[in-house]
Amino acid sequence: MQKITILIHCKDQKNIIASVTTFIAKVGGNITYIDQHVDVEQNVFFMRLECEFANSEITIESFKEDFDQTLASKFDMSWDLYSQEQKPKMALFVSKYDHCLFDILGRYSAGELNIEIPVIISNHNDLRSIAEKFDIPFHVVPFTKDNKEEGEAKQIELLKRYHIDFIVLARYMQIITPKLISLYENRIINIHHSFLPAFPGAKPYHSAFKRGVKIIGATSHYVTEELDEGPIIEQDIARVSHIHSVEDFIMKGRDLERIVLARAIKLHSQRKTMVYSNKTVVFS
Amino acid sequence: MQKITILIHCKDQKNIIASVTTFIAKVGGNITYIDQHVDVEQNVFFMRLECEFANSEITIESFKEDFDQTLASKFDMSWDLYSQEQKPKMALFVSKYDHCLFDILGRYSAGELNIEIPVIISNHNDLRSIAEKFDIPFHVVPFTKDNKEEGEAKQIELLKRYHIDFIVLARYMQIITPKLISLYENRIINIHHSFLPAFPGAKPYHSAFKRGVKIIGATSHYVTEELDEGPIIEQDIARVSHIHSVEDFIMKGRDLERIVLARAIKLHSQRKTMVYSNKTVVFS
Amino acid sequence: MQKITILIHCKDQKNIIASVTTFIAKVGGNITYIDQHVDVEQNVFFMRLECEFANSEITIESFKEDFDQTLASKFDMSWDLYSQEQKPKMALFVSKYDHCLFDILGRYSAGELNIEIPVIISNHNDLRSIAEKFDIPFHVVPFTKDNKEEGEAKQIELLKRYHIDFIVLARYMQIITPKLISLYENRIINIHHSFLPAFPGAKPYHSAFKRGVKIIGATSHYVTEELDEGPIIEQDIARVSHIHSVEDFIMKGRDLERIVLARAIKLHSQRKTMVYSNKTVVFS
Amino acid sequence: MQKITILIHCKDQKNIIASVTTFIAKVGGNITYIDQHVDVEQNVFFMRLECEFANSEITIESFKEDFDQTLASKFDMSWDLYSQEQKPKMALFVSKYDHCLFDILGRYSAGELNIEIPVIISNHNDLRSIAEKFDIPFHVVPFTKDNKEEGEAKQIELLKRYHIDFIVLARYMQIITPKLISLYENRIINIHHSFLPAFPGAKPYHSAFKRGVKIIGATSHYVTEELDEGPIIEQDIARVSHIHSVEDFIMKGRDLERIVLARAIKLHSQRKTMVYSNKTVVFS
Repeated sequence: MQKITILIHCKDQKNIIASVTTFIAKVGGNITYIDQHVDVEQNVFFMRLECEFANSEITIESFKEDFDQTLASKFDMSWDLYSQEQKPKMALFVSKYDHCLFDILGRYSAGELNIEIPVIISNHNDLRSIAEKFDIPFHVVPFTKDNKEEGEAKQIELLKRYHIDFIVLARYMQIITPKLISLYENRIINIHHSFLPAFPGAKPYHSAFKRGVKIIGATSHYVTEELDEGPIIEQDIARVSHIHSVEDFIMKGRDLERIVLARAIKLHSQRKTMVYSNKTVVFS
Repeated sequence: MQKITILIHCKDQKNIIASVTTFIAKVGGNITYIDQHVDVEQNVFFMRLECEFANSEITIESFKEDFDQTLASKFDMSWDLYSQEQKPKMALFVSKYDHCLFDILGRYSAGELNIEIPVIISNHNDLRSIAEKFDIPFHVVPFTKDNKEEGEAKQIELLKRYHIDFIVLARYMQIITPKLISLYENRIINIHHSFLPAFPGAKPYHSAFKRGVKIIGATSHYVTEELDEGPIIEQDIARVSHIHSVEDFIMKGRDLERIVLARAIKLHSQRKTMVYSNKTVVFS
Repeated sequence: MQKITILIHCKDQKNIIASVTTFIAKVGGNITYIDQHVDVEQNVFFMRLECEFANSEITIESFKEDFDQTLASKFDMSWDLYSQEQKPKMALFVSKYDHCLFDILGRYSAGELNIEIPVIISNHNDLRSIAEKFDIPFHVVPFTKDNKEEGEAKQIELLKRYHIDFIVLARYMQIITPKLISLYENRIINIHHSFLPAFPGAKPYHSAFKRGVKIIGATSHYVTEELDEGPIIEQDIARVSHIHSVEDFIMKGRDLERIVLARAIKLHSQRKTMVYSNKTVVFS
Repeated sequence: MQKITILIHCKDQKNIIASVTTFIAKVGGNITYIDQHVDVEQNVFFMRLECEFANSEITIESFKEDFDQTLASKFDMSWDLYSQEQKPKMALFVSKYDHCLFDILGRYSAGELNIEIPVIISNHNDLRSIAEKFDIPFHVVPFTKDNKEEGEAKQIELLKRYHIDFIVLARYMQIITPKLISLYENRIINIHHSFLPAFPGAKPYHSAFKRGVKIIGATSHYVTEELDEGPIIEQDIARVSHIHSVEDFIMKGRDLERIVLARAIKLHSQRKTMVYSNKTVVFS
C-alpha cells in the first residue's frame, strides 16, 4: 500500500481530528492532505484525507481492519478507503448529442482524466463512429417505454461485465430506472442544461429564452429518482442578452455542459465528493 | 436642444434604419450612438440612438412633431425622446435593510448616478437617520393589510409632489399595489435576492442553501402584478460551497444585491432599457 | 448571391450609416444585422452588416463594383465582403500539446465550427495519430534556428496548396517568421497561456504561481512581429488560490486555453473581428 | 477566554496536526474550524484554527504560555493568537477619490465589518464632509516630497494615539514610507486599480485601454517597499469591449475596487490571511 484516500462522515464529536491524525501517524502514514467540514445544522462531521506510506508492507486489508476497530466503531463512522493506484472505471451513456462525448474522449485521450472508460452505452447507433475513433467498445441498448425491463437488464449486465465503478450520462436522453439508481447510488452523474433548480425537465434553453434571463447555466448532479432533483456537484453560467436567439443559448450552453460535466467527472473520480441530505460536500 | 436619446420600437419593416438615419441627418443632427435589435420570432424592431445638434435653435417640440409626421406614423412606431440634460427623478422605497440604501446613496453622493433622489419612502422609521446623513427627505408611509388603500394614496401623493419619474425598491418588503404599478408601468425596479426564476418569493437564500446549489444570484427586474415575474433587467452570481452557512449566503448576497441593483438603476436612468413581451432589450 | 457579410472602416463622417443602409435597400438587400462603432479618440468609423438578397440574380462582382463606385470611394472606405456560403479554410499549427487540438477537432466534428480544416502542420510527429483519427492531412515541417528559411518556404507552400484563409496556432511552440506574418496579416491566431499583458513569453503559469496571483488567464490574439503583443481577440480567467500547485494552474489553464481559442476561431471565421491600432473591434 | 483564532506556520513536519488538535482537546477547547496548508515547494506548514472554551477560567496568558512550551518550541512555530471578542482597529488613508470611502463606511455602518474605524487620515481636506457624515475623526496630514519626515511622524503619532492595528489605503495616492511599512508589516492593505502584475504604477486604466484588453481588474495587496509588488490578497475582473471608453473602464473599475478592497478588509480582519514568500495563504 502506498497512497490512499479516506472519506469519513459521522456525528460531530470531540477529538475526531486528533484521533484520526494520531492513528495515521501511529501506523506510519504521512498525511499529505487533510480537509474537514462540519455541518453545524445537522451536526455531521466530514473528513477527507490523503496519506502516503513509506513502508509499503502494510496492506490495505490490515489498515482497514485496524482503522475499523480503533476508530470507526468508536466514533460510529461511515467511511471509504481508496487506493490512489487504482483508476476508477467509468461507463458513458449517450444518445445523439456528441459534444460532451467528444469533449470527454478528448480529455481522456489527452491524459487529463485519471480513469478508465471501458465502455460506451447508447440507445441509438448514431455515435458509434466516434467511439470507434477512440477505440472504445460501443453497445447499443434500446430503451423505450415498452422494453424498460429488458433494457435495464442489458445495461446492468454490461456494467457488470466491464466492472464499472461509476456512470456518466453525457446528454443521455432517457430515464434511468430506480433499480439501476439504487445499484449505483451517488455514482451516476448527469449533466442538466440549466441552472438548477431553474428550468428542470425538457427544453430548458427554450424556457430560459422565453423568461428573458440574462444568465444561463448548466448543472452536474448525482441522479436520484426525482428528475433533476439530485445532489448538485457543480454549476457554471454564461451571460446572454437580448441579441441571443435560442440557438445562441444552445450553442453557448454546449460549452457550459462540457466544462461542468468534465469538472464533475474529475471531482468524483478523485474521490472529492461526499453526499449528505441530498447535498454534496466537495473538497477541492 | 442639444443632446437627445430616442427609443423606438415597431413592427420590423424594410428601410427603417435608412429612414431614421436619413431623417436625423436632414434635420442637422449628428448620430453619436446607434444600436438596433430585431426580435426575429416576434418580428419587432428596436432602436436606440443618441444625437447631438450643433444648431441649438431646433426645439424638442418641433423635432417631435416633425419625427411624428415624417417617420413614426409611417412605420407605426412606439417611441420616446429624452433630453440628456434632464436628470430623471428617482424615489427610493425601503423597509429595514440598509445595505442597498447605503450603496445607492454612496454612489449618488460620489456623482456616479445621473439622477436626482428627491425622496425616500419607507413603511418603517428605522432608516431615517441614514436619509438624514445624506440630506434626503424621508417619509414614513405605513403599509399593512389593513391600510393598503390609505398607504397607496399617500405613496401616490408623495410621488406626484416630488415629480418622480421612476421608483426603486431597495429591499422594500411590501407588495406594490396594482394601481401604483399601472401608474409607473416599467418604471418600478425591484431587486430580488435570487437567481430568478429559481427561488421566487420569501427566503430565497434559505431555499438555495437547502437545495445545495453551488452558485447564488440576484436579479433586478421591473415590477409587474405577478410577484418576481417581471421583465429581468440584470442578474449576477457568486460561487458558494458546502463551507458556507445560510448566513454566509446572505452576506455574499448583499454584495450581489448592491451591484445588480446599481447596474439596473444606471441602465434605466440612461434610457438603455426597453420592455417587450415581458423581456428587456438592454442596449449597453 | 444570397447572404453576405460586409466589414467597413473609414474616417468618421456624417451620413455614413444612412448612405450605406439606403444603398443596400436600393439594390434589393434586406439588412438582417447591423452594428457599428466609432472610435472617438481616433475618429474612425467601423461597421459590420449582414444582408440577404431575395433576388439571387445580383452577383457578388456587380455588387462590389456598385458599392465601390457609389460608397467606398466617396467615403474613402476600407472594406471587405464575404459570402456566407463559403466556409473559410483554416490551417492548424501544432507541436506537442494535444488538448487544444482535441478540442478544436471535437468541435469541428460536432459541426460547431463553420470552417474547413484541410491541413494540420507540425514541427514534430507526435500528434499525427490524432490527425489521422479525424482524417485530416498532417504534415511535419521541421522548424529550428538552422532551417528557418527552408521551414518557412515549406509552410508557405503547404498553405498555398490547401488554399488556406487563416492560421490557428494551437499551442505551436515556434516563432512565426515575419514573411509569413505579412502574408497572413491579422489572419494568424495564437493562444497565449496568460492574462496578457501579464506574463508574456515562456512559462507564464510558473511566473503566475511565483507572483501569487489569485486569478489566472488565457488570451487569444492576432500574431504580430512583437511576441505576445498583437491585437487581443478574447480573454478569460479562472480563480486560483494557495492550495493550487503549478500543476493545478496548468490543468486549469488548459480549460481556459481551449475555450478562449475556440471563441477566437468562431469570431474570426464569422467575420466578427476588425483590427485597428493594434486593437480589435469584436462585433458579437 | 471564550473564542480564539490561532494562526501557525513552521517547517512541515510529521504529527503537527495531531499534536495541535490533541493539545486543544487536552486543555478543554472545542475546535470549531480547522484548515491547514502545506507549501510543498518551500516545505512550510500553515494552519488556522478557531476554538471555543466552555470553561472560561482559562486565560489567554496561561493558554499562550502552555502552547508555547508544549508545542511552539517543539515544532519551532511562528504563531499568533487572537481573541474573537476584540475588534481590530483600522485606520483609513484617503486622498480625493471618494467611492471606496463611501463603500467602506456604508458597510461599516450597516454592521458588515467586524472592526472599529477610529480615524481617517488624508493628505487633503476634500473628503472631510464624508467623515463627518459618518462621525469619524478626520485628520489632514499633508504629505509631499518636501515634508515626508514630518508627514510620516504625524501619521505614526496618530496611528499610536488611536491604537491602530491595521491600515487601509482607500485610493490614497501617496507613497507609504519604509519606516511606516516596517511598523505595520503585512498590515497595510492597498487597492490597485489593475489586474496585477499587469499595469502597475500610474494610470492603469489608460494603459489597459491602449493595449486593447478584453478584461480589466483590481487587486488588493499588502504594501511592501516595492510599489505594487506586495503579496496579493484578492483580485477580481470585469469584461470590457471596444465599445467602452477609458471613462467606462474607470467607472467599471470603481465597482471592482470597492468589492476587492472590501473583501480584503474582511479577510484580514477575520485573521484569514497569512503571508509567506511574498504570497498569501487565504483561508476562506
